[in-house]
Amino acid sequence: MLIKYRPIGIIKTTFTTIEGMPIQSKAAQGVKGTVEVKRRFVEGLKDLEGFSHIYLIFHLHKSKRFNLQVIPFLDTKPHGVFATRAPRRPNPVGISVVRLLNIRDNILEIENVDMLDGTPLLDIKPYTSKFDRFDTEKEGWLDEVPGKVNEIKSDTRFN
Amino acid sequence: MLIKYRPIGIIKTTFTTIEGMPIQSKAAQGVKGTVEVKRRFVEGLKDLEGFSHIYLIFHLHKSKRFNLQVIPFLDTKPHGVFATRAPRRPNPVGISVVRLLNIRDNILEIENVDMLDGTPLLDIKPYTSKFDRFDTEKEGWLDEVPGKVNEIKSDTRFN
Repeated sequence: MLIKYRPIGIIKTTFTTIEGMPIQSKAAQGVKGTVEVKRRFVEGLKDLEGFSHIYLIFHLHKSKRFNLQVIPFLDTKPHGVFATRAPRRPNPVGISVVRLLNIRDNILEIENVDMLDGTPLLDIKPYTSKFDRFDTEKEGWLDEVPGKVNEIKSDTRFN
Repeated sequence: MLIKYRPIGIIKTTFTTIEGMPIQSKAAQGVKGTVEVKRRFVEGLKDLEGFSHIYLIFHLHKSKRFNLQVIPFLDTKPHGVFATRAPRRPNPVGISVVRLLNIRDNILEIENVDMLDGTPLLDIKPYTSKFDRFDTEKEGWLDEVPGKVNEIKSDTRFN
């Protein structure tokens, strides 16, 4: 089964290389970017600006291969790729929750961006505390590593 | 630009029709299902079972068309599709956070499922309170509707 998507827009950021990028939107506080939605989808943005936070779902377009075991940025030991957020995945889909600052026509100004410039956008969904906040009991290997998501930047390992 | 994905597995649930399904995993407390990951990806599941909650990213395979404005299950007024979680979207990608009960070989037992039986799975990511919980200031039209996500079930409007 082959699933085919076409981008609904493009994400513009200041990150032109993977090296030095924040590794999660939580680690990208205040980093601004824009989303250019294709004009034919503008009507679909109605009422989105009422939300302070939105999901962006995107294609990790620089990810051309994958490994089933990876050493993530936050650890020194290998884990299964599905137990990590590493960008090289069998289907390189990325999700990030960003802050929505404003919308003018087809342009979204966003904050807390952790994507490469030129990232193809697949979907936008509203983030809501009603559906999207969960209380976890355990968080696997992430429970074992220090809380350093804000300090560590992306390097070249997934180039 | 055409983006091509192939399912890494399939989600098995008790929901064979859209009508009557929970509309979010938050509204599917205790509803069990399984994920069958293709055998060649099993190595990628290593260490996933340490997480109590995981993201499933999937293809909404029954969604063949889209509308840019929709009346979501939780409201009586139309909104832009990107301001809703309605299944008929330009790229019908779904995301749900489910509880992971256990993994045996290539089979994940999960709880809080809100997908149709046979849904093609694109990706699995760990859910972590470190990256994935956000404090919102406003939630648009969802602030205006009563908190009835647990009561309302899916109907046929998006068939």
